[in-house]
Amino acid sequence: MFEMISLKNGLDNVKGFYSGGLNCGLRPNSEQGDLSFIRSEVPCLTTATYTTNRFCAAPIKHAKEYGDIFESDFVLINAKNANAMTGEKGLEDIKDILSKTPIETKNPIMSSTGVIGYRLPKDKIIDGLNRLDFNTKDSNALATSIMTTDRFKKEICFRVNLEDGTSFMVAAVAKGAGMINPAMATMLCFIVTDADIPKDDINELLNVAVDDSFNKISVDGDTSTNDTALLMANGESGAYNKEAFKVALKRLTFELAMMMLRDGEGSNKVVAFEVTGAKNNEEAAKAAINLSNSLLVKTALFGQDPNWGRIASTIGASGIECDEEKLVIYYDNLLIYSSEYPELDKDREDKAYKIMSKDSFKIKCNLGLGDGSYMAYGCDLSYEYVKINAEYRT
Amino acid sequence: MFEMISLKNGLDNVKGFYSGGLNCGLRPNSEQGDLSFIRSEVPCLTTATYTTNRFCAAPIKHAKEYGDIFESDFVLINAKNANAMTGEKGLEDIKDILSKTPIETKNPIMSSTGVIGYRLPKDKIIDGLNRLDFNTKDSNALATSIMTTDRFKKEICFRVNLEDGTSFMVAAVAKGAGMINPAMATMLCFIVTDADIPKDDINELLNVAVDDSFNKISVDGDTSTNDTALLMANGESGAYNKEAFKVALKRLTFELAMMMLRDGEGSNKVVAFEVTGAKNNEEAAKAAINLSNSLLVKTALFGQDPNWGRIASTIGASGIECDEEKLVIYYDNLLIYSSEYPELDKDREDKAYKIMSKDSFKIKCNLGLGDGSYMAYGCDLSYEYVKINAEYRT
Repeated sequence: MFEMISLKNGLDNVKGFYSGGLNCGLRPNSEQGDLSFIRSEVPCLTTATYTTNRFCAAPIKHAKEYGDIFESDFVLINAKNANAMTGEKGLEDIKDILSKTPIETKNPIMSSTGVIGYRLPKDKIIDGLNRLDFNTKDSNALATSIMTTDRFKKEICFRVNLEDGTSFMVAAVAKGAGMINPAMATMLCFIVTDADIPKDDINELLNVAVDDSFNKISVDGDTSTNDTALLMANGESGAYNKEAFKVALKRLTFELAMMMLRDGEGSNKVVAFEVTGAKNNEEAAKAAINLSNSLLVKTALFGQDPNWGRIASTIGASGIECDEEKLVIYYDNLLIYSSEYPELDKDREDKAYKIMSKDSFKIKCNLGLGDGSYMAYGCDLSYEYVKINAEYRT
Repeated sequence: MFEMISLKNGLDNVKGFYSGGLNCGLRPNSEQGDLSFIRSEVPCLTTATYTTNRFCAAPIKHAKEYGDIFESDFVLINAKNANAMTGEKGLEDIKDILSKTPIETKNPIMSSTGVIGYRLPKDKIIDGLNRLDFNTKDSNALATSIMTTDRFKKEICFRVNLEDGTSFMVAAVAKGAGMINPAMATMLCFIVTDADIPKDDINELLNVAVDDSFNKISVDGDTSTNDTALLMANGESGAYNKEAFKVALKRLTFELAMMMLRDGEGSNKVVAFEVTGAKNNEEAAKAAINLSNSLLVKTALFGQDPNWGRIASTIGASGIECDEEKLVIYYDNLLIYSSEYPELDKDREDKAYKIMSKDSFKIKCNLGLGDGSYMAYGCDLSYEYVKINAEYRT
């Protein structure tokens, strides 16, 4: 069928794309970049999915003005300031900044992450914009510049070799560590490809991939004002196969989503919540997402306490149809609860503890009622989460 | 109209009611009680509101068998074991235990709090049941026996003097500190009164009071399997006035709810979230409840960070109609955000910090869209919360 090869150095592998970053003073007294860009030699077929937050940030309002699918060759990204809740002036700031870009651009986009409610420091950003080298390939500088509370950078690249001997690249950088919530995970993700994607496919491809990745992870149940997943296709490889691209994009976004969870603010483990046997898929999703968001479940994961009562209680509280006589709970392949074995004996408790000590494991809940199923992903909640979020701005 | 006087010693003030508690071995190596009772000399008109959790515990299933309104003269309460997810056997255990009560009872009720998924230690409880002194008035022993992660006991009593010279008492004990969530707050609350409440009124009175108190507070957004608010009226005073009783019961439940919030696991402050100007009351409630549950809001409260962006973001994420040009946010009487003053200057930030340092304050959000309003109550999220809930069972 096709072959997927994982490559280092993210966007640098993709023909026709340039990226880089520098510090323009938004992060004072730091060597870490705060302003970065992605540039394409030719206009790209471009689409994006955005936050569902009603107070979406100015950069999202600005990008939406181009429509669902548009041509673009330039993205400017800043950290430390979300340009959210800044009203009409926030939009004007973006247009003003982008108009000062020292190279020709088509439908340029801006993307921002940081604190809500402050105007962008335009002078610093425009000064930085004039110092950026738009002919560099420095995906590392881009990936590190967009980090906020991230503990590690997130970049990824696949080369996909098709049966007919042609091949394309798909690469992405992302930031995301806290505030991750289904619908959609709070994050920025920039995906570029030289695949020759038809206009009719690009929206569907991105939506399906985002649904199966960023929309299934939760760190703390909050949804930000700035979430964006952007896909730019320059067509330079001339290669394309819909099925292959779909698989590659799904894997790429899923791996980035898992990286975000593993980097969830203060998180120590990634847990998959698989709900099966629900009346329907909607009910399964409700239970799985509630499990991934429950504070009591998350703190039990942190404490590695095989207290399955919190799992059951959260399912019961999610408002879906369920029956304690039919529910069965497994941690990986260990039976934790069924109505025939209600009490966890010492031996099973020890085994459960071992499973919970791992970096990642699966909690499987079969409701025994129907064919509905859903998988959500979450992480534990630690002291570190509280520390990071109590001290965020200071 | 009428006069309300606050009295010490909780249930001990109410004619015809007896209560007490002891340690029967459910809390090993402790002097704190774990088994307690409430007894009435005469059968009481009794009603209750229960958890909405689908996996409601065995004691709730048992009490529901008596119907919405019933006559009862005895409640037995145990800590450390929720008797939840214990199936048919959990129900049988209750009936067996209650049948061993050494005094005559009518429609006795059991109430449990603790870990989910284990059968009640029947022998210990029956042994304790035989050692209880059913003629004692020891509200303190009752109130301390039902505490779990509570840092302080919760009991309260009002004498209500009516215009015609008659008077009645209404008193309650409660436990509740974590897992507090609107609909309904996770807690046990036992209210007794010697008011002569007509059967037609009792349900409405309790529902209204619970809606305006326990259903408006949130510690962590989880809803337990055992929540119960029970009201027993023995009519002994012969006194009653619907309006006076309504006011007294509302104040009693509201004060208990505030005690629970103040005792919210690891919480340091109580915050009222007032949402006004919403399209309708439902939308206002959605926003207010989301604010009281948001981890990012709760950690900002703990950090005393006047980061109002998290308030705005949470409102925007709650799926209700809102407009950043119309939103106005106050902390107490300090303007924090309006679209005309988007940036918090140093002076207002200092003032905001001072407000947030208080034990309690109000966050007021006016959406500027309609007449809908709702008030929810929450608390901050601290390291202590994580510690308590990571270590709960050990």
